[in-house]
Amino acid sequence: MPGTPPARYVYLGPEGTFTEAALRTLPAAERGVRTPARSVPEALEAVRAGDADAALVPLENSVGGAIPVTLDELVTGSPLVITREVVLPVEFVLAARRPTPLDQVRTVAAHPQASAQCRNWLLAHLPDAVVVDVLSNAAAAIAAAAGEFDAALCAPIGVPRNRLTVLADKVADHADAVTRFALLTRPGPATEPTGDDVTSLAVSIRHDQVGALLAVLTELSVRGVNLSRIESRPTGEQLGTYFFFLDCTGHVAEARMGEALQGLHRICAEVRFLGSYPRHRLTREDPVPSPPGLSDADFADSEAWLARLRSGSL
Amino acid sequence: MPGTPPARYVYLGPEGTFTEAALRTLPAAERGVRTPARSVPEALEAVRAGDADAALVPLENSVGGAIPVTLDELVTGSPLVITREVVLPVEFVLAARRPTPLDQVRTVAAHPQASAQCRNWLLAHLPDAVVVDVLSNAAAAIAAAAGEFDAALCAPIGVPRNRLTVLADKVADHADAVTRFALLTRPGPATEPTGDDVTSLAVSIRHDQVGALLAVLTELSVRGVNLSRIESRPTGEQLGTYFFFLDCTGHVAEARMGEALQGLHRICAEVRFLGSYPRHRLTREDPVPSPPGLSDADFADSEAWLARLRSGSL
Amino acid sequence: MPGTPPARYVYLGPEGTFTEAALRTLPAAERGVRTPARSVPEALEAVRAGDADAALVPLENSVGGAIPVTLDELVTGSPLVITREVVLPVEFVLAARRPTPLDQVRTVAAHPQASAQCRNWLLAHLPDAVVVDVLSNAAAAIAAAAGEFDAALCAPIGVPRNRLTVLADKVADHADAVTRFALLTRPGPATEPTGDDVTSLAVSIRHDQVGALLAVLTELSVRGVNLSRIESRPTGEQLGTYFFFLDCTGHVAEARMGEALQGLHRICAEVRFLGSYPRHRLTREDPVPSPPGLSDADFADSEAWLARLRSGSL
Amino acid sequence: MPGTPPARYVYLGPEGTFTEAALRTLPAAERGVRTPARSVPEALEAVRAGDADAALVPLENSVGGAIPVTLDELVTGSPLVITREVVLPVEFVLAARRPTPLDQVRTVAAHPQASAQCRNWLLAHLPDAVVVDVLSNAAAAIAAAAGEFDAALCAPIGVPRNRLTVLADKVADHADAVTRFALLTRPGPATEPTGDDVTSLAVSIRHDQVGALLAVLTELSVRGVNLSRIESRPTGEQLGTYFFFLDCTGHVAEARMGEALQGLHRICAEVRFLGSYPRHRLTREDPVPSPPGLSDADFADSEAWLARLRSGSL
Repeated sequence: MPGTPPARYVYLGPEGTFTEAALRTLPAAERGVRTPARSVPEALEAVRAGDADAALVPLENSVGGAIPVTLDELVTGSPLVITREVVLPVEFVLAARRPTPLDQVRTVAAHPQASAQCRNWLLAHLPDAVVVDVLSNAAAAIAAAAGEFDAALCAPIGVPRNRLTVLADKVADHADAVTRFALLTRPGPATEPTGDDVTSLAVSIRHDQVGALLAVLTELSVRGVNLSRIESRPTGEQLGTYFFFLDCTGHVAEARMGEALQGLHRICAEVRFLGSYPRHRLTREDPVPSPPGLSDADFADSEAWLARLRSGSL
Repeated sequence: MPGTPPARYVYLGPEGTFTEAALRTLPAAERGVRTPARSVPEALEAVRAGDADAALVPLENSVGGAIPVTLDELVTGSPLVITREVVLPVEFVLAARRPTPLDQVRTVAAHPQASAQCRNWLLAHLPDAVVVDVLSNAAAAIAAAAGEFDAALCAPIGVPRNRLTVLADKVADHADAVTRFALLTRPGPATEPTGDDVTSLAVSIRHDQVGALLAVLTELSVRGVNLSRIESRPTGEQLGTYFFFLDCTGHVAEARMGEALQGLHRICAEVRFLGSYPRHRLTREDPVPSPPGLSDADFADSEAWLARLRSGSL
Repeated sequence: MPGTPPARYVYLGPEGTFTEAALRTLPAAERGVRTPARSVPEALEAVRAGDADAALVPLENSVGGAIPVTLDELVTGSPLVITREVVLPVEFVLAARRPTPLDQVRTVAAHPQASAQCRNWLLAHLPDAVVVDVLSNAAAAIAAAAGEFDAALCAPIGVPRNRLTVLADKVADHADAVTRFALLTRPGPATEPTGDDVTSLAVSIRHDQVGALLAVLTELSVRGVNLSRIESRPTGEQLGTYFFFLDCTGHVAEARMGEALQGLHRICAEVRFLGSYPRHRLTREDPVPSPPGLSDADFADSEAWLARLRSGSL
Repeated sequence: MPGTPPARYVYLGPEGTFTEAALRTLPAAERGVRTPARSVPEALEAVRAGDADAALVPLENSVGGAIPVTLDELVTGSPLVITREVVLPVEFVLAARRPTPLDQVRTVAAHPQASAQCRNWLLAHLPDAVVVDVLSNAAAAIAAAAGEFDAALCAPIGVPRNRLTVLADKVADHADAVTRFALLTRPGPATEPTGDDVTSLAVSIRHDQVGALLAVLTELSVRGVNLSRIESRPTGEQLGTYFFFLDCTGHVAEARMGEALQGLHRICAEVRFLGSYPRHRLTREDPVPSPPGLSDADFADSEAWLARLRSGSL
C-alpha cells in the first residue's frame, strides 16, 4: 500500500548504540520491528534481499568524518536510496556499575573513536586511568556492567540497558558534535520536494583532478546548485581514482537539479543517485530560496522562450 | 508557399559596390528583383515593412571590423533573423577612364576605408598621388569615370559598370581580406541543421564586466558551444553598458544550443536571437563534430536517465 | 626635464571638431602648440617620429563604438602609451549662416555618424529636409558657412569658428552620449597610481574563442581585476583571429595588476600594454576599493608568508 | 650536521604491522632507532617534543581511505611537515600456529579493516569460519600464536615474528591495494625540487561550498597546478565547515606553486603547508612536465617583462 511506512527496520548494531537511539526518533520505526545488524554491509544486504524494508546506518560524524564502509556500500551492489536523514547530537557519558569517585576510576573501556572524541576530558579528569580499546560503545557498557573495567565511555542509551550509573555526562570535547544517519530503502518514485531538501550523489571522475573536479562544480554552479558536503573516496581500484560524495541543496524533481544531474551524467564516468530527501535541522532555520533566475518558474519560462525561437514566433 | 525563395531583395547600395556583388552570388537573388537602399536602416526597414522579402547588408569586415550600424539595427526595432551569410573576398582595383601609367596618376578618389585597406600599396606605387576621400566605392568609380580624378580605388564590379580600365588589380594590402554579409528576413520556423551552422546572438549584460562575461561564456562552455566571433557594442545608453554579439557554432534546433540559450535567457538582461544558418566557407573544411558527450543523442540519453531517476527505476 | 608637460600636441583634425575641443580641456595643451593631423595614423606617426610630444585621438564613442583606426594603430608600429583620457559629452547643434525657421531648412550637411546620432531629431523636426553626407563635422560647418547647404549638423566649437548661428542645440538623440579620447605619448616610466586608474591592454588570442577568452578573463578575475570595457577587433589576418582591447580597473604599479599582467603574458599569443592612467569621470564618484584580500598589503603579506614557508619558519 | 638523516624514528605500532614494514624500507631508518607508538597522536607528539626526529604514520589507504586521525593531527598543534612518503602494497596472509587445511579453520582473528579487505576471499574459502574482531593486525597474529583462534589475517611481517605458518597468501580482494605513509619532521628549509614532487596542503574554507571550492581550484588551475588527491574533513566545529587536504603536483620552491600558494593564502580562512617531498612511485613513470607557459623560466620571463613595462622600456 503506497504511503505505508516501512514496517521492518534493520540498523547497525549492537543494541544500545547511537544508531538505535537515532532510529527510535522516527515514529514509524518506533511502531515497527527493529533488528540490529552486525555490520553496515549486513544491514544493507537485508534491504537489498527484501528481508527488511529500510536500514538506518551512520553516514557522517562531525568529529570522525564520513563512515567509509557506508559510502563504499552505497556505490557497489544494487542501488539503494536515502529517503530520510537523522541528525543526532553525540553525547557521551562515563558510566559504571555503581557510584564511584572519579579518582578511583583506574580502567575505562572505550571504543577508540569514543576515547578520541573525549580525549581532552579524559586528560583533565582521569589523567591516570588506563583507557582500554573495545570494539563498540555497547561493548564498553557491557564490559563495565560485567565488572571487567571500572567504567565505560558509552552512549546514554547504554546506561539503563546495562543498569549502569552515570559518573559524568557531556564528556565529549566538542559540545556540538553530531552524527548523521541515513535511512536507506530500495528505489521508488521521487517524493515531492519540501523546499528544503538534499540530493545525495556519488560521482566518479578520472585522472586530472583539478580539471575534472572544476568541471563537476561548474555543472552545479551554472544551475545554482550548492553543496552542503563533499567527500572523496578512492574507488578501491587504485590511489588517484575517486568517487566524490556530494550533498546538494535541492530535489531531483526540481528543474535546476534535473538539468545539473543531466550535465553530470554527460561528463562523469559514473553518477550514482543516492536520493532526494528533506533536510533534518536540529534548529529551525529558513530554507534558502532558489537563486534569482533559477526557480522552476524561470526554467519553464526559458523553455517556453526557446520553443518560440524554434517556431519563429520572436 | 513554403520553400519558395524570397523574390524581392534589397541591398546596401549604391549599385556597383561589394554588397551588390555579394548578393549576385545567390542564385535565387540573381533570379529575383534587386533594389539598392541608401543605408542599412533603410534596407532593413523595407523588410520590416513587407516591401522586400530579404535584405543583404554587410556584417563584418576582416580588416575594418564589425559594421556598427548593422549591429545596432539588429538589436532595435522589430526582430529580423539572418537566414544566410555570404563571405566575399575583398579585392580592390585601381581603375581609370583610360590606360594611364602609374607615374601619371596624380589624384585618386577613394572611400576612406578603401584607401586605409590599400595604404601600403599606395605608398609604394603612388607615393606622390593625392588621395581624395569620397563617400563610397561606387562614388569613387563614378567620379573617375566623370574625369574628376585620374583614378579610383573601387570594387571589380564598378569597372564594367562605369566603363573603366583596370590600371592595377589586387591592390589591397591584406590578400585574404573578406567581407561577411548577412541576408535578413522576418522570423520564421527554424530551418534544419546542416551540421555546420552558426547561431548569432546579441546579449546585453550589466555592470561588472568580468563576472558577467565569465558567466555568459561559462553557460556556453558547459554545453560545449564554441564562439567563432565576439563583438562588443555599447548599448547607446552610456559607456560601460554593452551588447555582445556572439557567433556560436551550432544550430538552435540542437539540444546543446537550446540548453545554452535557455541558460543565457535566465542570466542576461536581454538575449536577442539573430538566426541559425549554414556557415559559408570559402574553402572546403570539415565541420567540427559535437564535443564528446554533447551530441543530441547524448542529451536524449541524459534526459532518459533523469526520467528513470525520477520514476525510481534506477 | 621630468614632469614637464608635453609642449607640442597633435590631434585628429580638422580644426573645429570634437577632438580639438577635447584637447583644449587640458590646461597644458591650452598653453602648448596644437597642430591638427589629417588622420589618426598621421597624428600617431608624428609622436613616433618625435615631431610631437603627444597626440589626442578619439578612442571610443558611446554611440558609434570603438574607433577602429585608433585601435589598429595602437597594435601596430612602435609602442605608444595612453597617459591621459578625456571624456567629452557629445553635443550636436544645427547651425546655419543666418537665423532660419526650421521649416525653411531644406538641405543639411552632416557627417554620416552625426546624422546617425541625430536621426530621431531630424525625423521629428526636419522630416522633409535632404541630409547630404560630408566627410567631417568641420566640413559640414564650412559647407554651411559657404552657403552650399541651408544648415549643418556640427560641434558647438564649429559655430564661432565659422560665424554660424545656432538654429537648435542638443539635437543628439542620446543626451548622455560621450566620446572618449586618448592622449598618446612615447613610453616612459609608470606614473604613480591615483587609486582610480585604468590600465589598457590589447591581447591577441588564438583559435578556440570560448576557452581562450575564458582563460583571459579568469586570469583577471583570480586577481580581482575588473573590466570597464572590452572590444574585439580582427587582427587583419583573417576572420576569426582577434585582438581584444581591455580596459582594466587598476594600475600597472599595483601588485594584483602586475600579477594579472604576468599571467596574461604567459598564456596569450601577444599582450600589448597600452598604459595606466587616471580615470576621467564626468561626475564625482568614489573609486572602487580593492576587493578583500587583494590590496598591495595583502600581496606583500602573502609574499612574506611564502618566504617563511620556503625557509621552514612555519 | 645538515644532511644527516634522522636517527630516532617513531612509528605507529604495535610492532609487526604494516607501518613497521614501511619504515624498514627506508635505509636511514633501518640504521636508526625505531620505536613503536601506541597511537598516531603519541607518535607525532614525540616529534613535536623533540623525543624523536621523525614519525612514520599511515596517511591514506587505497581501500579504506584517509586515516582521519592523521589528518586531524596535522591541522592541530604545532606544525609538522612531510619530508618523505612511502607507498607500500597491502598484502594480507592467513596464518596459523601450524599447517592446517582450510576446511578445518573454524575461527579467524582479524582487525575489522583487514576482514573487510578480504571479505570476498573469506566468503569463498572459509564460508563457515567465524571471524572475530580484534584491535590490530599484530594482535590477530599474537592471538593466533597463543592458540586463541585457529588462524589470523595479518601482515607478512607478523608471520616470522610470531613463528606462524602461512596457510594462504595474497588473500586481499584488491590485488593492487596500497597504503601510503608519511614521514613527519619538524619544519626546516625547503629541499630542492626533484622534478616529480608532491606538495601537501590543508585549506579551510567557509560557507558556500561550491563557490569557495571553485575559487580554490581556480587558484590552482590558473597556475597549472594539478591535484593528485583531495580529501575533505569536517573541522570538528560543526557539520558543514571543512578542511580540504590537497596533494598538489609540484614543489614549494617552484614559481607556479609559490604563486598558487600565495593566492590560496589570500582567499582561504587558513592554509596549512604540510610539506613538499618526492613522489614515491611503485613503478617507474615519467614525471609530468610543467604545462606550457608555466615553467620557472616562463615565470622569470613574465616577471622581467613586467619590470620592463613598469620602467617604460616597451
